[in-house]
Amino acid sequence: MFAYDLNIYVMEFDYLIAPNPDDPRLTRRVEGIDHAGKEIVTSVTVERPLTLFLNGQEIVTMMTIGDYPEYLALGYLLNQNMIHEDDHITSIDYDADIETVVVRTAMKTTFEEKVKKKTLTSGCAQGTVFGDVMEKFETISLPEGHIIKTSWLTTLVKKINTTPSLYLEAGAIHGCVLAREDRPLLYMEDVGRHNAVDKIAGYMYQNDMSGADKIFYTTGRLTSEMVIKSVQMGIPIVVSRSGFTAWGVELAKQVGLTLIGRARGKRFVALAGQHRIVSDIDPLDEDE
Amino acid sequence: MFAYDLNIYVMEFDYLIAPNPDDPRLTRRVEGIDHAGKEIVTSVTVERPLTLFLNGQEIVTMMTIGDYPEYLALGYLLNQNMIHEDDHITSIDYDADIETVVVRTAMKTTFEEKVKKKTLTSGCAQGTVFGDVMEKFETISLPEGHIIKTSWLTTLVKKINTTPSLYLEAGAIHGCVLAREDRPLLYMEDVGRHNAVDKIAGYMYQNDMSGADKIFYTTGRLTSEMVIKSVQMGIPIVVSRSGFTAWGVELAKQVGLTLIGRARGKRFVALAGQHRIVSDIDPLDEDE
Repeated sequence: MFAYDLNIYVMEFDYLIAPNPDDPRLTRRVEGIDHAGKEIVTSVTVERPLTLFLNGQEIVTMMTIGDYPEYLALGYLLNQNMIHEDDHITSIDYDADIETVVVRTAMKTTFEEKVKKKTLTSGCAQGTVFGDVMEKFETISLPEGHIIKTSWLTTLVKKINTTPSLYLEAGAIHGCVLAREDRPLLYMEDVGRHNAVDKIAGYMYQNDMSGADKIFYTTGRLTSEMVIKSVQMGIPIVVSRSGFTAWGVELAKQVGLTLIGRARGKRFVALAGQHRIVSDIDPLDEDE
Repeated sequence: MFAYDLNIYVMEFDYLIAPNPDDPRLTRRVEGIDHAGKEIVTSVTVERPLTLFLNGQEIVTMMTIGDYPEYLALGYLLNQNMIHEDDHITSIDYDADIETVVVRTAMKTTFEEKVKKKTLTSGCAQGTVFGDVMEKFETISLPEGHIIKTSWLTTLVKKINTTPSLYLEAGAIHGCVLAREDRPLLYMEDVGRHNAVDKIAGYMYQNDMSGADKIFYTTGRLTSEMVIKSVQMGIPIVVSRSGFTAWGVELAKQVGLTLIGRARGKRFVALAGQHRIVSDIDPLDEDE
């Protein structure tokens, strides 16, 4: 939609991974009409199925833009508690033709047995998985000692909003960003926000990156799911341009997560973990 | 957030069902701070689990605001192709205490047997269900002879945006509206847009309401899922304030669905089924 040099953005903001709206696999040009009846050509986001296997077990078919299938697979399994830090991963094989990704571990995981038992009685593994995730959630304690300055927040939001992205190119997509202080490090997009966060989790695991000193930004709502995933990734501070759900807020309070929503320009609302927010912008500036 | 009389809106726009942001079960007041460090109290949307059973079979646990559990259950089963028009439904029992809803049919449905077979081999029923849905999708032909005037579209968007809603009260929620010409009939909200559309499907089924002369409006993106559900509900025209995905557009073209996105004020983009759009607003007005 506008001309730019992607490398400038990767360099200027020091992204490790930034969106690549020029990738021809991720958008498609479609003809249509506008409100005046005029013929137009516009970009739309591509979504494609990806079926995930853990060893011999088919787990789920996800709809994804398909840019980082290996990170997505790994992050999904981690965030669903289907694999753990001590499961030795021997391979991750992505096959574009048959749209599958297979994650293999040295030994069978405990999850495969659980899935078999559960599905014999109730028909779907989702209940079990959710139960396991909540059990783990209650044992996690988030690191203290890391803060977010309001000046970082303002800078971060501005950098993220001006980074070339599929969102700016084609819309209809969610973005998640992993940041340190006011520097965005990883910016992942996908049709579902759960995929975008899972891709970040997969990258962090593969690169042995800690969540303790990070800030997690999402364009999506601060739901229970988003809170649970951030906490599992060990990230103490979560920011969204969007709003909250009550259960999201409750879980964040339970575990001491800093939950900042409705972040636009210099404005925001924090509904949990306010102790990590350090105000270093003069409130008198707020109407600038 | 502002004072109004709900009945005025139900009467003025002739809604059959409109959002009820005053319902104390749907939002919670939460304390926090704003960007200036000032203590504030704000409304957030409530989400709660609802476990759905079809006869003796546990199907899924959904996260929902919980306002119309019976319509949600029925619409979910219909839109997932788990029950069909000729399955005689004998009861729908909602139990608020244990957060379950049980749909019973006179005879076992074909779905329960399928679930059992499938889960023995692959661990989850989702693949089968999706397969069935696509099979049915390919056999559907949408009714012709119904149109949307651009003046209706403008009026509809304005009415929907000014209707008191949980979105205006607390944000972080999706809305779906079933309309006829420029009159919104059903306005359902939920934490997931799939729930909002399923509640409308459940209402339509219970009240024997045809989709042929209707327009479906959603705040969410025009994904394959949204296109499939609208088509299954027999609705030929779909409108969103949000954008498109490529597969959504492709499926809409396949089946001749009119797909209108990025609808704001008088502006929109149509990427499929343009033949049903009748322009009756002078394009010269567009910069008003």
